[in-house]
Amino acid sequence: MRILVTGAAGFLGSHLCDHLLAEGHEVVGMDNFVTGNRHNLAHLSGHQRFSFIRHDVSNFIFVPGELDAVMHFASPASPNPNSPYGYVNLPIQTMKAGALGTHNTLGVAKHYQAKFILASTSEIYGDPQVHPQDESYWGHVDPLGERAVYDEAKRFAEALTLAYHRFHGIDTRIVRIFNTYGPRMRLDDGRVVPNFIKQALQGKPLTVYGDGTQTRSFCYVDDLIEGIYRLLLSDEHRPVNIGNPHEMTILELAETINTMLENPAPITMLPKRRGEGDPERRRPDISRAKKVLDWEPEISLEEGLKKTLPYFQDHLGDL
Amino acid sequence: MRILVTGAAGFLGSHLCDHLLAEGHEVVGMDNFVTGNRHNLAHLSGHQRFSFIRHDVSNFIFVPGELDAVMHFASPASPNPNSPYGYVNLPIQTMKAGALGTHNTLGVAKHYQAKFILASTSEIYGDPQVHPQDESYWGHVDPLGERAVYDEAKRFAEALTLAYHRFHGIDTRIVRIFNTYGPRMRLDDGRVVPNFIKQALQGKPLTVYGDGTQTRSFCYVDDLIEGIYRLLLSDEHRPVNIGNPHEMTILELAETINTMLENPAPITMLPKRRGEGDPERRRPDISRAKKVLDWEPEISLEEGLKKTLPYFQDHLGDL
Repeated sequence: MRILVTGAAGFLGSHLCDHLLAEGHEVVGMDNFVTGNRHNLAHLSGHQRFSFIRHDVSNFIFVPGELDAVMHFASPASPNPNSPYGYVNLPIQTMKAGALGTHNTLGVAKHYQAKFILASTSEIYGDPQVHPQDESYWGHVDPLGERAVYDEAKRFAEALTLAYHRFHGIDTRIVRIFNTYGPRMRLDDGRVVPNFIKQALQGKPLTVYGDGTQTRSFCYVDDLIEGIYRLLLSDEHRPVNIGNPHEMTILELAETINTMLENPAPITMLPKRRGEGDPERRRPDISRAKKVLDWEPEISLEEGLKKTLPYFQDHLGDL
Repeated sequence: MRILVTGAAGFLGSHLCDHLLAEGHEVVGMDNFVTGNRHNLAHLSGHQRFSFIRHDVSNFIFVPGELDAVMHFASPASPNPNSPYGYVNLPIQTMKAGALGTHNTLGVAKHYQAKFILASTSEIYGDPQVHPQDESYWGHVDPLGERAVYDEAKRFAEALTLAYHRFHGIDTRIVRIFNTYGPRMRLDDGRVVPNFIKQALQGKPLTVYGDGTQTRSFCYVDDLIEGIYRLLLSDEHRPVNIGNPHEMTILELAETINTMLENPAPITMLPKRRGEGDPERRRPDISRAKKVLDWEPEISLEEGLKKTLPYFQDHLGDL
């Protein structure tokens, strides 16, 4: 297939490009580098089946040649208000990537009669009142909250994707991505895994906000990309959760990383951050992915962290 | 003030134009006539302070001359899946009016440093789990439901409006409009008040879907427009519910209309319609409007229906 990947220079987008190329496909990458990192694509320079278009998806998209699939992965994605890459600090760009970008990429899919995958998110569940979250849950999102710029944009993007499926007959997919980690996350993007690894590598105390009992479920990027690839090959039009259902507290995560990295510094507990939308619990119900994609994550947290560490060690000097 | 009103040929938009002109303002109306009706503006033809631009708000908007305010009222608004004007039958247009249209009209407000009012809706509360709904309620919306094309578009539009306020300093307002009725509703738009009046005028049985115990609160259009006008003149940036808190069952409404119109036909109970999103109850908490706008509705249902009837009698032959 010839596949357009938007957000190709991002954490997930670049791994996706690698996987698609490894599977023998031709990839057209697109990014505007607002949060994407050109170094993530440097190794693809000169690849015969890879080309790149620098472009903002919120403007009309033209891709020369035929396309068999469009994968819309462009968006700021870090919830951390203290990071320059956090979507709360890029509110208009985030909303444009989600709404205008989805509209434009759906337009490309419609033009070429190509498959379409929307990268959606567990954030559409907001601060969930049911646990774990399966795909039928409506979510619990504050439309006026600081995180609404991301959450509402993705909810809108899902509804628009489904509308194109129902009314234009576009062959769409929606993946709801839960917390993921791995190489190529920005060390300063502010999400908890890179933050902890960075602090541990620097021998600093790991900073936990709140009492540390809030839980998360972390999926290693290779597992996630495999799930998304299977979704691309499937005929599933309904949203599919892709994530790791192994739930742990933030404090457990901190302790695991400190142990692995032999960081002697103690864990520092800080008051809950601004940004009331930080959910207490988040864990995917992956029954649908198991059933329709025969997919479940295979890489344990310890293995995944081991695969992640070299990248962070190499890039610690960039900060 | 010189004011741009989008959706000017719609039910609410046209009443808004009339009110603004009566208050001495200059009005630029805009509509693409997807659901708007040119007859609603016919009486303004030749008005010295009224001009009109036929334009789709989902495309870039250019308005020559200065503007002091932008009021974004363009959108399909009928939830009835059996009406050609129902938003479930105009899904892409509805999502574009809500997302691209709000983005474009906010752009106009930003360009002219004009005030901005978004016409939002009680639909952002979805099928509410608290009752009545005040502005702090997060809502309960199915992002994949048939009504999501309207609900999610309006939730996105609110979040985008607030983002422009917070990050671009635009002087924005958000009005959450509850059920409204009055002259210039389309007889065939499928909403319950015009539907019942039409049936009663034709001497036919009024059709109630479900058991008729679902409740609604109906605001007469003049009350609503007065509330919106006060919001325009206020400094309130938070969303404000505007609607009539007098709650009644659909069955009570049917009986009131049958009595007023001396319709001898019995009420027909039909199974609940397709479109699972039809909420059981909806009633505004208008404490904020009372407090910050000193506004509450003054026109009773009986009075409002009396003011509405002549229009429907005049237009019964159009069907």
